[in-house]
Amino acid sequence: MPASPAAPPFLPSRRLRDVRGSAIRDLLTLTARDDVLSLAGGLPAADQLPRERIAVAAERALRAAGSVQYGETAGLAGLREVVAAHESGRLRRPVTPAEVVITSGSQQALDLLARAVLDPGDAVVVEDPAYVGALQVFQAAGAVLHPVPVDAGGMDVDALAALLAGGLRPKLVHTVSSFHNPRGVTLAQDRRRRLAALAETYGFLVVEDDPYGLLAFDGRPPLPVAAHGAQVVRLGSVSKILAPALRVGWLLGPGAVCAAVERLKQCTDLCGSTLTQTIAADLLADHDWLAGHLDRLRAANRSRAAAFTAAVDEVFGSAVTRSTPAGGMFCWLEFPDGTDTDALLPRAVAHGVAFVPGSAFAVGPPRGSALRCCFVSYPEEVLRDAVRRLAAAAS
Amino acid sequence: MPASPAAPPFLPSRRLRDVRGSAIRDLLTLTARDDVLSLAGGLPAADQLPRERIAVAAERALRAAGSVQYGETAGLAGLREVVAAHESGRLRRPVTPAEVVITSGSQQALDLLARAVLDPGDAVVVEDPAYVGALQVFQAAGAVLHPVPVDAGGMDVDALAALLAGGLRPKLVHTVSSFHNPRGVTLAQDRRRRLAALAETYGFLVVEDDPYGLLAFDGRPPLPVAAHGAQVVRLGSVSKILAPALRVGWLLGPGAVCAAVERLKQCTDLCGSTLTQTIAADLLADHDWLAGHLDRLRAANRSRAAAFTAAVDEVFGSAVTRSTPAGGMFCWLEFPDGTDTDALLPRAVAHGVAFVPGSAFAVGPPRGSALRCCFVSYPEEVLRDAVRRLAAAAS
Repeated sequence: MPASPAAPPFLPSRRLRDVRGSAIRDLLTLTARDDVLSLAGGLPAADQLPRERIAVAAERALRAAGSVQYGETAGLAGLREVVAAHESGRLRRPVTPAEVVITSGSQQALDLLARAVLDPGDAVVVEDPAYVGALQVFQAAGAVLHPVPVDAGGMDVDALAALLAGGLRPKLVHTVSSFHNPRGVTLAQDRRRRLAALAETYGFLVVEDDPYGLLAFDGRPPLPVAAHGAQVVRLGSVSKILAPALRVGWLLGPGAVCAAVERLKQCTDLCGSTLTQTIAADLLADHDWLAGHLDRLRAANRSRAAAFTAAVDEVFGSAVTRSTPAGGMFCWLEFPDGTDTDALLPRAVAHGVAFVPGSAFAVGPPRGSALRCCFVSYPEEVLRDAVRRLAAAAS
Repeated sequence: MPASPAAPPFLPSRRLRDVRGSAIRDLLTLTARDDVLSLAGGLPAADQLPRERIAVAAERALRAAGSVQYGETAGLAGLREVVAAHESGRLRRPVTPAEVVITSGSQQALDLLARAVLDPGDAVVVEDPAYVGALQVFQAAGAVLHPVPVDAGGMDVDALAALLAGGLRPKLVHTVSSFHNPRGVTLAQDRRRRLAALAETYGFLVVEDDPYGLLAFDGRPPLPVAAHGAQVVRLGSVSKILAPALRVGWLLGPGAVCAAVERLKQCTDLCGSTLTQTIAADLLADHDWLAGHLDRLRAANRSRAAAFTAAVDEVFGSAVTRSTPAGGMFCWLEFPDGTDTDALLPRAVAHGVAFVPGSAFAVGPPRGSALRCCFVSYPEEVLRDAVRRLAAAAS
């Protein structure tokens, strides 16, 4: 019986060596202790996922023979129709199912898009701080990353324009346009218009990564960047509004982009799950139920965000500045005194609370005194307790 | 309202341009007519998928809150345990869950493995004729393909040894070891031993792609290549034995390979579906039910294969030579008179029957007089009708 060998000497490939590990993921392992309140995760709250409604849809789906068979690579026709109708409302123009490819979460849409479009050495503009999953995808594709700062109005589009005027020619510009991960902010409408126009002037594609848009506390999702121009690929997902386990996301874009992504998906995993796509289509098409569910979800998140930010203000006062959540799941804190949040983390864990240090999201020079907190995972009183623990660790 | 633009001038990426389209896929669209009996597909028969059992498992799974949440990237712990136990039986050695990564069908395992291991320009040995999905994956990874012929005993390992002796140094050697797609044959045990030994001598990894092993008509799956050496990565799937819509496959390999694949999966789609993994684990762990289900499936396939091959022998006589199915889903036919099966296909469709021409699977010079037929999709009398239609088209 042969023993397990050492790693083959050729492992890993160059593309994998270029992918930085997710500090967040390592962190989640570290902080998965019962006595630690974790504000580090990016998961929707388990008690808010509509499990009973999913069970009804599953039972209904499994009455049809086709529900357990292979499906079309571009996605279940019925789901593409529902998503197209939904995006028509979001974009205020008719969207056809041919503009939609269903993917395994929007993460797969991002990965397929990058692989369909990018050659090694290509320039990609990313936000700084950035969604780490996007950095990993672009690194795996061999792209050269160019960071653009994010401020209270979202991506600094002036800074992007300056890079472009200076000669940078990216193929893709990635933005989490609404309720930014990790920065908690939303791209201003005038910046959205300008970004879409720059894409047409300079011939790049905007990747509008929008998993949180429907989680606007006031129930009014911001008008997408894609409503302002045609050189925009939009990514959406049910993970934050229905359930991550459905693994249903989508890409909305020009026909040639969809065709390239579909072709690559064919050799990547053949197709998504007919079963979970049927369930997602059922829930998304059930308009009255969906409206009520989203109202409940937004109300809960709004209340939790209010409790969290009030506690931060009360406990830290001027020792911390923070974003003002208007939706989504994240709040971004900064210590004006330069407190090193990498060094703070182990002390915080010792005090029974975890967060993600800003350095985890940095593309350029790390923001050593910032941190990301998820405010949706716990009820209000637990969030207040978590903030008190954080203050104790920081004092 | 902006019009949809032309394709960005940079589309598609080089890696996508290197991927040939799937002739089979185009063909399936062409032949999806109600009046055409299609032997072209590679789908399990819908009437043999255990939909009621899946519904029971779904209902049970959805009682737990965790069933709709994100899961671990490497796969649901319970499923990895069940797969490890199953593979322990297949390999006749203890397999641990740490050696298993769950993927979205075995196609994703193949894609992640290729990306984790291959740099552009690397050599990969493939069978000829080959599983087209493997060719696409290796092309997308920028590999240089080196074909080795397949005969009645599976991959011609002597031919591989000659290539290696001649200086070829592949990183991967891919084989569909049992009940080959498209060739319908099974790699002989002495060749399996030799292949595993060559991997250790020359430092490559064998990719043992084995979705059909449990579909041996006699109920005795061949001893895997991985049982003969440690430089083998095994790919498995529930798609052909339970249901494609679960999108559950797996990779079994050395720890360093699993770690690299897991890291790449993290940025590819974060994780698989907790729901469908829970369902798959339920069914795979229900040993009595599974044994009965597989017995029924194998009996049905055996009967269909017998009807199909008897009809071929009766109708074509010496005008056609064929593989002798001992499991799986496919039978390979060749016209010794050199009949051009690409040219035959439209005539066959006109006669109400479809197949996949051998050229679709060719890596080296195309096998212009061969074709692949799937024998599991129809009951016996329909298969006999399909063979008669094929003969009418060929006459």
